[in-house]
Amino acid sequence: MDGRTLASGAVSCVKNIANPVSLARAVMEKTAHIMLTGRGANMFAESIGIVTVPTETLVTEYEMKEWEKHKNYVTGVMEDFNSQWAHDTVGAVAVDCAGNVACATSTGGIRNKMVGRVGDSPIIGSGGYADNFTGAVSCTGHGESILKVTLARLILSHIEQGKSVADASQLSLQYMGDRVQGAGGAIVVSPSGKWAATFTTERMAWAAVENDVLWYGLDPNKRLKEQLSK
Amino acid sequence: MDGRTLASGAVSCVKNIANPVSLARAVMEKTAHIMLTGRGANMFAESIGIVTVPTETLVTEYEMKEWEKHKNYVTGVMEDFNSQWAHDTVGAVAVDCAGNVACATSTGGIRNKMVGRVGDSPIIGSGGYADNFTGAVSCTGHGESILKVTLARLILSHIEQGKSVADASQLSLQYMGDRVQGAGGAIVVSPSGKWAATFTTERMAWAAVENDVLWYGLDPNKRLKEQLSK
Repeated sequence: MDGRTLASGAVSCVKNIANPVSLARAVMEKTAHIMLTGRGANMFAESIGIVTVPTETLVTEYEMKEWEKHKNYVTGVMEDFNSQWAHDTVGAVAVDCAGNVACATSTGGIRNKMVGRVGDSPIIGSGGYADNFTGAVSCTGHGESILKVTLARLILSHIEQGKSVADASQLSLQYMGDRVQGAGGAIVVSPSGKWAATFTTERMAWAAVENDVLWYGLDPNKRLKEQLSK
Repeated sequence: MDGRTLASGAVSCVKNIANPVSLARAVMEKTAHIMLTGRGANMFAESIGIVTVPTETLVTEYEMKEWEKHKNYVTGVMEDFNSQWAHDTVGAVAVDCAGNVACATSTGGIRNKMVGRVGDSPIIGSGGYADNFTGAVSCTGHGESILKVTLARLILSHIEQGKSVADASQLSLQYMGDRVQGAGGAIVVSPSGKWAATFTTERMAWAAVENDVLWYGLDPNKRLKEQLSK
């Protein structure tokens, strides 16, 4: 999503696409639509020359083993959220020197999901949102909870009303926990370059580059720092 | 969407389903998910005994003629929005005597769309949203514009900040016109029973029942009234 124009692109339920964010961007740039799903999204990919890759290249040995271990679980048992449900969402937010913000979110979804299940990642306002007047957000966590509170939009609403990027994220994740008992995380950047990486899950791998400093972390309240060479 | 719990259900890109809102409700009530798309949504329908109907029963003669007339148009030409793009979205919002609100939105989509195109209707926060703390909204109009501004959530944000249901709708539709040049409409009801039917499109067919009075309209600034018998 492009925060300057609110132009957006998304795909869901695509098969054998190595880089779904590139395909989503093509939907934004080359069609009159915002979201394509399933067979239609794959047909569009083919029409613009995006080649499919074999399924094996998209499945790691670790994931295959985890799936074998968990496939007999009842779908969606919340108490086992952290072990049963994979957290493989990758999100990015960025701001340029003119204050233009953008976001992207990509995921393989959760383990043991039903065929055709769409989570929050491709949903504008839930898995991500970008608006030059407030900032850009990308979310991860329990997709169904994120959808219920439209987490990305919620965080930006708090920023719009004067909260800092960190407070807006914390408040929104707290609300999601209280209202729908869901855990998650979000990365946020404002048009002026303020950023936050906040989560109510046990862990979230994150990194941020600001000037020549790399910030990164995995566990709550632990922020590491590294000077990058120019 | 159920405003008490924020529980939600949605389907997109389903085939030969006569009542997609019933299927969406089943996703909400019978699965751990919120959204199912394409083949997976149809598989779920079959698994719970929702029978498919022949395609012919879902296509009217009028629509077939319009499609024949317009099928050679370039997809998505905005200037011809009103004639080329069908407006067949049906939405509903409701409130009960305890202040519980709910919404539902259903659509056949726009004419000449690409295979797999998903508009705003099944997207929580865009085509609809319901929250007992603010109200319930169902939207219609240019789906891509509604998605860009997450119209349903935007209207409820204004209500949260103290605006009336009518002002919140008007402000949000105005913003959508200014920011992304899109037209649309929305029906809103608050937990206390205040309601509004607002649109920036040329026409929107709407009706509301309040106590024993039926209100309805089609053109801007024209509200008709009928006393219902008890």
